Amino acid sequence: MFEQLGLIGCGLMGGSFALAMKQAGLVRRVIGYSKSPSTTEYARQLGVIDVEAPSALQAVSGADLIMLAVPVAATEATFKAIRHLVGGSTLIIDVGSTKRDVIDAARRVLGDNVGAFVPCHPITGREVSGVANADPSLYVGKQVILTPIERTHDSQIERATALWTALGCHVVRMSPQEHDAAFAAVSHLPHLIAFALMNSLASQKAGEAFMALAGPGFRDFSRIAASDPKMWRDILLANREEMANQMEHFQRALAEFDKLIAEGRGNDLERLINRASHARANWRKPGL
Amino acid sequence: MFEQLGLIGCGLMGGSFALAMKQAGLVRRVIGYSKSPSTTEYARQLGVIDVEAPSALQAVSGADLIMLAVPVAATEATFKAIRHLVGGSTLIIDVGSTKRDVIDAARRVLGDNVGAFVPCHPITGREVSGVANADPSLYVGKQVILTPIERTHDSQIERATALWTALGCHVVRMSPQEHDAAFAAVSHLPHLIAFALMNSLASQKAGEAFMALAGPGFRDFSRIAASDPKMWRDILLANREEMANQMEHFQRALAEFDKLIAEGRGNDLERLINRASHARANWRKPGL
Repeated sequence: MFEQLGLIGCGLMGGSFALAMKQAGLVRRVIGYSKSPSTTEYARQLGVIDVEAPSALQAVSGADLIMLAVPVAATEATFKAIRHLVGGSTLIIDVGSTKRDVIDAARRVLGDNVGAFVPCHPITGREVSGVANADPSLYVGKQVILTPIERTHDSQIERATALWTALGCHVVRMSPQEHDAAFAAVSHLPHLIAFALMNSLASQKAGEAFMALAGPGFRDFSRIAASDPKMWRDILLANREEMANQMEHFQRALAEFDKLIAEGRGNDLERLINRASHARANWRKPGL
Repeated sequence: MFEQLGLIGCGLMGGSFALAMKQAGLVRRVIGYSKSPSTTEYARQLGVIDVEAPSALQAVSGADLIMLAVPVAATEATFKAIRHLVGGSTLIIDVGSTKRDVIDAARRVLGDNVGAFVPCHPITGREVSGVANADPSLYVGKQVILTPIERTHDSQIERATALWTALGCHVVRMSPQEHDAAFAAVSHLPHLIAFALMNSLASQKAGEAFMALAGPGFRDFSRIAASDPKMWRDILLANREEMANQMEHFQRALAEFDKLIAEGRGNDLERLINRASHARANWRKPGL
């Protein structure tokens, strides 16, 4: 399907993508680049990429498919590094967890060629990172969200859709705004809350003693607080607008509880908890 | 060790306690009472109790051990129902998730006999409730927190400690205030937050569409939101003071994040997340 993949970022996400593409016979050759030359070299030794490129620009030279698998905050710099070799016929995709900021960067840097970029967010990952953990099955059976803009070429959307489908993914399409709102609500805000709860405990003298008494509820609730700090720094900054909006909804819901508790309104409080309990019990996520 | 257990509340916690006491050979006879006569009858049919009592008062008549396994909000009414048959030599224990309110009720109602009551909180439970799920191993290997007050008789504290130890529990002692603060921090506030997050989602038009995109992080974070509404209504009302205190700590931690995100201070934000991530990664709960 593709002659040459230019892979920028040979980490868990990028490395797994390259392996999956090769295994599916969807690409002939993979030229890879990572910020750290030792990572690029390691990726070649592992067979994740075929050729090491000394720069992002050289990685995309001659590619008909470009995959950006870099932290979202590095997107703009990456586009800048490669723009002189990006033509309208090259398909460019990414794996960023936020989409509006990535798209803004594409608009600013790619100019007339922005139509070649199809913003993608595959809903997958691991608790480990790095090319050593790259796994060709990382994407199989997962949702991939495409958030094209008006200027995105229909033909590129079709190619991106065909590519992910061939890798065994379920492609979902929505606007960048819907995407960022949804993930602010079900992922970014929960992470922020879990971080804040851990810091709230850590800031109290008795915090460690408190935590020694915690049970399985706490364990599950707080698990996401152990996530990668650099990655989450970028996400929280990139999606701050939608986060602020979701935070407002959350604080409103919290204030409702506060009020009923302060006024001792047991029946209304029970109704409120009942609503939450039902919403959670009725949530069924395929495959989870 | 005990001749007769008067069990008030034949649900999961009370029923499991009776079974465990019998299995360990720590009690000769169990007289049980539940608010619903059909529950009491069912408990006898299951062999959880030996004799059905038509009232709480009759359940404790002749008992040298009284176990209150009722919702915390029902504690005061239960003490009132039994006070005329409570003497200083009877050991009274409970399983309530909050302690200051339970102790206040005991002080108000038991008067001079308050020294016979040893407030207990076994850190155990199931997602299912009811006597049908009673299990003699529910308490094995679990922590039981005792929160005696100055007036609690030393001899009763010793008897309670010996009893729980004989059931395979690890007994921990702390003040009622410490207990309620700790559980506000690691259990009650996380539950409140999870309830509020679910309601925040449920209140948004796109909430269901958002949730359809949620992954394993959301699944774990929100699991406790499916908890029993009546039980949590009681806990949130009973422990409102410590909850308010913990909420203040949490909101302060959240505001710190908000500020750094709004000001785009990436390095400081990363440090803040790092602190949370470390606190969570270093938390090791034996047996979890």
